[in-house]
Amino acid sequence: MPTNRQILLKSRPTGAPSAANFELVDTPAPEPKDGEMLLKTLFLSLDPYMRGRMSDGPSYAAPAEIGKPMVGGTVSQVVASRKAGYAEGDIVGSYVGWQEYAVSNGLGLTRLDPNLVKPVSLALGLLGMPGMTAYAGLMEIGQPKAGETVVVSAASGAVGSVVGQLAKLKGCRAVGVAGGPEKCKYVVEQLGFDACVDHKGDNLRERLAAAAPKGIDVYFENVGGATQRAVWPLLNNFARVPVCGLIADYNNPGAGTGPDLRTVLVKRMSVRGFIVTELWPKYPNATAELAQWYREGKIKYREDVVEGLERAPEAFFGLLQGKNFGKLVVKVAS
Amino acid sequence: MPTNRQILLKSRPTGAPSAANFELVDTPAPEPKDGEMLLKTLFLSLDPYMRGRMSDGPSYAAPAEIGKPMVGGTVSQVVASRKAGYAEGDIVGSYVGWQEYAVSNGLGLTRLDPNLVKPVSLALGLLGMPGMTAYAGLMEIGQPKAGETVVVSAASGAVGSVVGQLAKLKGCRAVGVAGGPEKCKYVVEQLGFDACVDHKGDNLRERLAAAAPKGIDVYFENVGGATQRAVWPLLNNFARVPVCGLIADYNNPGAGTGPDLRTVLVKRMSVRGFIVTELWPKYPNATAELAQWYREGKIKYREDVVEGLERAPEAFFGLLQGKNFGKLVVKVAS
Repeated sequence: MPTNRQILLKSRPTGAPSAANFELVDTPAPEPKDGEMLLKTLFLSLDPYMRGRMSDGPSYAAPAEIGKPMVGGTVSQVVASRKAGYAEGDIVGSYVGWQEYAVSNGLGLTRLDPNLVKPVSLALGLLGMPGMTAYAGLMEIGQPKAGETVVVSAASGAVGSVVGQLAKLKGCRAVGVAGGPEKCKYVVEQLGFDACVDHKGDNLRERLAAAAPKGIDVYFENVGGATQRAVWPLLNNFARVPVCGLIADYNNPGAGTGPDLRTVLVKRMSVRGFIVTELWPKYPNATAELAQWYREGKIKYREDVVEGLERAPEAFFGLLQGKNFGKLVVKVAS
Repeated sequence: MPTNRQILLKSRPTGAPSAANFELVDTPAPEPKDGEMLLKTLFLSLDPYMRGRMSDGPSYAAPAEIGKPMVGGTVSQVVASRKAGYAEGDIVGSYVGWQEYAVSNGLGLTRLDPNLVKPVSLALGLLGMPGMTAYAGLMEIGQPKAGETVVVSAASGAVGSVVGQLAKLKGCRAVGVAGGPEKCKYVVEQLGFDACVDHKGDNLRERLAAAAPKGIDVYFENVGGATQRAVWPLLNNFARVPVCGLIADYNNPGAGTGPDLRTVLVKRMSVRGFIVTELWPKYPNATAELAQWYREGKIKYREDVVEGLERAPEAFFGLLQGKNFGKLVVKVAS
């Protein structure tokens, strides 16, 4: 059997995670038994939620286990099958975590047609969890109406880029918030947002107000922190705030206070946290729609591909600081 | 014409309002023209939202005008009518504010049948705005399900007392928060809540946790402040928080921060502010239902009646400090 390179969770961080929290080990790849198959990881997804799994505080999911491969979504190829219905070469969506090989009995796998999902790494982005997060969170909670203004933070990222493009397809004014002029340029010129505001620099609120002259009807919250504080006073009556992520606060467990509830009351706002897996079933056609819009060029999707499993920790640390540009994936093998 | 005693808004408070913000004046009662009638105020409602109207900061309603009678809901009697369809002696729900007399062309009045709404002051409480606030906020946003735990603050008050009793009728565990042992005793023994926690005293969170052993599914927010901070960590996954009022913060414009948004995310909570008039039309039968439950003894409603218009300011200041016990109304005339 081949060697299985794995990255284990070694310890839980307080504050920002570091290399010391992970351990790279080489073990023999496991052997599939009857009814199982051996999967080779092609792509590993790196996502902000993983920071939460590294901790063992109360959350919506069990923490990643110490001494086990760090958890994560993957695209895998079947390299040996002892399970009926799966053949060598099949490509599947999987959740085997930060390792090169894993056995599976098929549970929780999704078959991917590489002719429809091209590149297959899109199954970790636009056509996977992040794309569904954007779709379901915006439609179910954001409820955008034509003519309204939708603001999304982390606008060049895996989720935000889709939120803004969907808002445009719904006839809204889409305003992004992103870090740095290069990302902002991309958000407007490539993704077609109406405006994008750089959260680095002074007078964020004033620049946001200028980009949203009719106020903000939907704020798709990915980041928290200073962007949230700038957005809050600009929200209109009856504004909807899908709370998807708070990446700016993840390494700062003491953040602790949120937006002024008096504004929520006076403006009759609706603020709702969500987890994609719980909304997903309500939108069974979303992935097909996203795929079609992608093929038609109506939705663009940028990937930030890092080569080699061993670079996953470093890339993940950068993700938490906004260093990635587009959906971050690790190419583990080809 | 009789003398019309009025209480005018003289100035806007910063922080807690005081007697200096009001002025008592005697003017001649106005004379009704053709198509108008003269109304005599029987009861004036005193409600927490009035604190907001005294200020001119951004809100959902225009501020009360300086030099005009302070605004407020009233029950009035027609004492002279030059309008077809209205006769002397008719009782109407009105909104003429803090004064003994007013003319009306009928706009915005609701006819009250004193045989159905008994006492007629209930039109300012259970069968009026506060009752509808409880009903619509709980049903529309709280969405209580049998077996869930509903916590309501200001539980002996005009809105909270109805929220808890409706929760019981829905098969929920109803837990009140109120100020002092006398109110708490009333909430449990008279209103039939399962428990009531006194917000005065130490270890509020621990006592709340003991009263809600399965956590909190709905928190009907009337007060903000320390009660909110105690409730927040006890909310369950998918908790709903109708934000109806924040009376503890009204005199403290610098309060400014709300509950931890990370909890909203991790627990997939829904937090929504509302104004009764915007939800009211969705529940056209609510008043009739509340009236029937009242007649059947399934819902009890306590009024705190103050005699004499001149005592309205003092009673209102007490309301903001929780000194009232039940729905606060001023009996202006009989």
